[in-house]
This record gives sequence, C-alpha cells and structure tokens, in this order.
Amino acid sequence: MTEKMIVNPYQVEGEVDYQRLVKEFGLQEITPEILEKIKQITKGLHPMLKRKIFFAHRDLNWVLDEYLKGNKFFLYTGCGPSGPIHLGHALVWYFTKYLQDTFDVELYFQFTDDEKFLYKDKPYEEIQKWVYENMLDVIAIGFDPKKTFFIVDTKHAGLLYPEAIKVAKKLTFSTVKSSFGFTDSNNVGSIFYTSMQAVPSFLPSVLKKKNIPCLIPHAIDQDNHFRITRDILPKLGFYKPASIQCSFLPPLTGAFGKMSSTGEAKGIFMTDSPKEIKDKINKYAFSGGQPTLEEHREKGGNTEIDIPFQYLKYLFEEDDEKLAEIEKDYSSGKMLTGEIKKYLIDKITAFLLAHQERRKDAHKKIDDFLLKV
Amino acid sequence: MTEKMIVNPYQVEGEVDYQRLVKEFGLQEITPEILEKIKQITKGLHPMLKRKIFFAHRDLNWVLDEYLKGNKFFLYTGCGPSGPIHLGHALVWYFTKYLQDTFDVELYFQFTDDEKFLYKDKPYEEIQKWVYENMLDVIAIGFDPKKTFFIVDTKHAGLLYPEAIKVAKKLTFSTVKSSFGFTDSNNVGSIFYTSMQAVPSFLPSVLKKKNIPCLIPHAIDQDNHFRITRDILPKLGFYKPASIQCSFLPPLTGAFGKMSSTGEAKGIFMTDSPKEIKDKINKYAFSGGQPTLEEHREKGGNTEIDIPFQYLKYLFEEDDEKLAEIEKDYSSGKMLTGEIKKYLIDKITAFLLAHQERRKDAHKKIDDFLLKV
Repeated sequence: MTEKMIVNPYQVEGEVDYQRLVKEFGLQEITPEILEKIKQITKGLHPMLKRKIFFAHRDLNWVLDEYLKGNKFFLYTGCGPSGPIHLGHALVWYFTKYLQDTFDVELYFQFTDDEKFLYKDKPYEEIQKWVYENMLDVIAIGFDPKKTFFIVDTKHAGLLYPEAIKVAKKLTFSTVKSSFGFTDSNNVGSIFYTSMQAVPSFLPSVLKKKNIPCLIPHAIDQDNHFRITRDILPKLGFYKPASIQCSFLPPLTGAFGKMSSTGEAKGIFMTDSPKEIKDKINKYAFSGGQPTLEEHREKGGNTEIDIPFQYLKYLFEEDDEKLAEIEKDYSSGKMLTGEIKKYLIDKITAFLLAHQERRKDAHKKIDDFLLKV
Repeated sequence: MTEKMIVNPYQVEGEVDYQRLVKEFGLQEITPEILEKIKQITKGLHPMLKRKIFFAHRDLNWVLDEYLKGNKFFLYTGCGPSGPIHLGHALVWYFTKYLQDTFDVELYFQFTDDEKFLYKDKPYEEIQKWVYENMLDVIAIGFDPKKTFFIVDTKHAGLLYPEAIKVAKKLTFSTVKSSFGFTDSNNVGSIFYTSMQAVPSFLPSVLKKKNIPCLIPHAIDQDNHFRITRDILPKLGFYKPASIQCSFLPPLTGAFGKMSSTGEAKGIFMTDSPKEIKDKINKYAFSGGQPTLEEHREKGGNTEIDIPFQYLKYLFEEDDEKLAEIEKDYSSGKMLTGEIKKYLIDKITAFLLAHQERRKDAHKKIDDFLLKV
C-alpha cells in the first residue's frame, strides 16, 4: 500500500519516503563513483555526503566534469523569508558554504520575499522585516562576501522580472497546476512566481554574457521549481541547472517529516538561547530510548528514530568515529537518553553561540553582500 | 438576436455595439451635465467630447469635483509596443494631450513591453525596438516633458513589480480567466500581467505618499484591465481610478471595428509618407457614396458608413461648422466621393507631416521623459 505523501514547496505531508521521491521526481542517487570524484577533487568528503544527508542529484557528474575541465560552476540557493531561521534551513546553507569554500566558486543567494508575500497571509512589511532578519543569519553562516551575491526578489526586480518573463512565456498554467497542485483560486502572483525562482540559475550567465554551469543545493521539496526550470532553460539557450538534494532535518517531535518554523516546538531557531535549546531538546526531542532505565540497559535505544542521534548525524557530530561510538553505545544501552540529549544540547549550544556571535555584526555587512546592479 | 461580439484587450471581433458595451461593462455615458461641467472648467469643449468619440466613463464626475476642490488628478494611459503606431492609437493620445494641457496635470505613460512579449509571437529584442520607435511617436504628440513620465514595464520593473504583487495577491486565476477568456494553456506571465497594468494607476500615490485621483483615457477594449484594477485598489487603500473611454477609430475597410497594425491596409501609420496616405485612402477607404456619379448626385452619400467622413469626424476636421457643411454636401450628393477623399488626404497629410517633423528630434528627448527612479 502506498501511503499518502505530498512533497512540494508549499506542502510536506505524510511520512517522507526518500527512495520513492527519487523515483517520482526522476532524480539520481549519489553513487560511490561520484563521491570518489568529489573526494579526488576536494581531498576529502563532507560528512553530509558520507552520511547521505545529501543523497540525490541531477547532472552533478556533468558539473564536476566541467569543473575538472576548468569550467567552474556557480552555486545558487535561497531563503523564503517569512519567519525565523531554524536548523533545517541552516543545514543546507552550511553545506553550501562547504561547497563554496572547497570548490572556490561564486554563490547567488535568493531571498524570495515576493513568494512569501504571495503565499502567506502576512503583510508586505512583515515579510520585509524577515528579509532583514534572515539576511543576518545567512551572513552569519560565513559565506565569502567577495563571492556571494544576495538577490532580493523585490529589490532586484528590475534585474529579475525582464528575465522571468522569458521563462514565463514558455510555461503554461497547466504545467504549474499539475506541478504545484494549484487551482483556479490561486492568486495570479503565485502562479507566475516560479518564473522568478528560475532566474538566478541563469542570471550570472546573462550578466557575464557566457553560459556558466549552475549547481543548486536544496532541500528536496524545492525540486518542483527546478524541474520546471530545467525544462525551460535550454529553450532560452542556457544549460540545465544541476542540483544536489538533501533530506529534511526532522522536526523535534519525530524522525519523519520536515522541521518547520510554525507549529509548537518543531523548530530550533538560530537565535535560541542556551536555555531555550536545552528546554526544547529535553521537552520535545523524540527519543528512541526505552521507557525505563532497566529496559534501556537491556534492549538499547533505536538510533533510527532517536531525534538526538539523528541531529548529531545530520549536523552536530562531524567526527565519524565519535558518531559511530555514540551509535554503538546508545544502541547497546550503555548510553542513556538523558546522556545523548545532554551531549546534543552541548553541541547545539556551542554551534549556535558561535553563529550568534557572527550574527552580531552581520547587519554591517548586508551592503557588501547585496548584488550590485 | 444578439450578434457575436468580443471586445477585450486581446481580441476585438464582430460589429462593435457601443451601447451594449456600456451596459455589459457597467460604464456610464457622458451626460450633457458632465460636458457642461468640463466646459465651465476648461472654457471650451474638445471636438472628441462634443462628437461623443469619447462617450463613456467611470467616476469622471467625481474626478472633476475633486479637481474643483483643488485636488488635482493625474492622467494615466499607455502603449503596447509591438508594431508601428497608427491613427487609432494617436487618437487617444492627442485627446490625452488636450486633457494634460487643459487641466494642467501630470501624465504617467506606460509602455507595456512585457505584455506584448508575453502575448505576441515576437522575440524580446523586436519588442524593445518597438518600445524605442513608439516612444518617438508618443513624444511627437507633444506632451509636456516636465509633467509626463514614461514607464517601461521591463525597465521600471524594480518599481512596478513590488507593487504589482500587492495587486496580484488579491486576484485569482478564476477572475482573470473569466475577464480575459484565458484557459489553462495561457502562459503564466500573461496570467500575471494585468497586475502590472494596474500599477501606474496608484504609483504616483505611492511615490508621493498621498492618495491622488487618477483618470485613465483609453480605448474601450482596455476596460477589462481597469475593471479589475478598480475592484482591487480600494483594498490597497487607494482611490478607484476614474476613466474615460473612446470608441475605436474604424479600420479603412469599414466603419465597424478597430484600426489595427496587422492585416492588409487596415491602418494608417504615423510614419506613412504623403504617397502612402494617398494610396491607402484612395484604394482602401470604404465609401458611403453611390456606385455611379448619377446615382450619387441623386441619392447622396451615407456619412454613417463613409470612412473619409468618419475620419474627419474622429480626428481631422476640428471645425464643427466645416464638418457640418461637409456632412450636408456629401449627404445631398453635392460632394463626391473623390472630393471627400481628396479633402481627407490633404488633412491627414498635413497632420502627419507635422507629427513627423516633431518626431525627428524626439530621440533626443527620451531621457527627459523616462520616469526617474
């Protein structure tokens, strides 16, 4: 029986079956051969690749081959500014920073304030406030200001809209309707919007007047946009953008789904205090441990569904040996739920305190990051 | 029996019944009271008002009352740049110039290059060429460069798009579907587009941070856009734009329809030479005269369907007494078809030579006219 599962940029429902998504979306799994190629180029392998957090792709092999020929790609990712940034967002961006640093490439970072305004029941001014707040978090990730270019859809509309209509002309309502589940009740801005999200994948090629490969790291729910983009770009004379997809950082409350900034206690925000982190993990983090101490010592915990272990695997324990040790100890019952939670709390706290420290001065750097037109 | 008639910005078909349009579109006819009010304000009355070429309106009375209270309106009209300008376009703009001069008001003039690109099977570059060419004709009309502001949708997208999404958020596909006859095969840019056409009707209010009445002179086929605009603007805190509608300058080939820049011999272009004008009128202008000289002398011509007479009435004979004389002479058979055509040819030739003379230097003035952002 196929369980109900909806995964698109505007809805994630049901237990997410990533293998099924790979098939349904027509993605490729990242093979050992591709990992080997990356390893040779970059003299190492990021934990999120080794652990298959980033697990699927399109044309990644091609982008690497072009890179090896001296034809560098640029990176494109983004942020939908409608609320505070949580760890699920940061996961993609920290991986993107690794790609930027390792491959020494430019990054175009889009803030889709038009999208959030059009899809959310929030006033324009509130979305603008989130653009500002979210920029601070993106800057705090540590991207290279010389090679990173912020695009804010409304601020850069003079640059984006003339290109977006070239995409839009080749895209019917039928297509977006079936891709995003739209109806006749959708507002006309939301119907047009994916054309705006397509633009950064070829904007550098327009600006530099040459065709440049693009690699998009993104969470898998954004794939609908880029499937459309890939269909259309060759018709405009550009390469299809390559992409690399990650699974969702699970919500605190359970290992299957997507961390969200709405709903109670689903998210840990980048601005959370040590106390908030501690309280959230202790109160909400779903445990794979056993109900009683005795039972736990006897049977051990289940790391597959244990949120603290999963968070360590996704983002907070970069040391493979240490992670393996925790997995062993927790599975065997040697390590207790309280202990793994405490370990995670310390990791997240250190991680976020460092992030928050970098965030303090970030407002001074916004101008440096904004794409100049 | 109601005959098939389609009138919207993207299709004009069948014999246009203006009385029926007034009812179907929910317009008001321009009453003698309103004409009297205009006459008192402006110490005169433009022939196109006296002759009911501009025959319908929305909220014109209100705009005049506000004007009398010292609350000046601004004018908004535009041009869809996909081909050469013909007399049908110029008619609206010459009337708009009269309004600007007489009421001493600002004019926002929109070049909808995005619309034409999205709706026509023409490349982006060709549309841009027409933006340039059409600007020369608009400048040649003689608008006041200090009070006239050109808006080019793609060039001013930085200003327009952030406002257009506020309109778009309040507009569903259902609404544009029924208003414009769209289907699921429409491209998503064309679906969004009317939001862009709405913006100039409140942009000056945004820029000047106060609510300013707007008056839109336009041919009646554009009304669909502005019905939508009027529904939405109060929800954004702006006045509904007022409007004043004209009937179409008929094509050369018959008195019922709309002059067009496509199709053979339907249009007289602003750049036509005296020989082209003469040849087009002589060859194509539909005559209300009788088949033979004898019959014409006996029965007289029918001015209702006679294109030369209609053109004189619409645009080329401003002198009411002279027009009445021609009507009398032509109806009685005293004036022959060849004579009324000759009279019109001389009028158009003088009109267009003067226009073309002003057009020569127009390219130097484009920068003065472009809205500064």
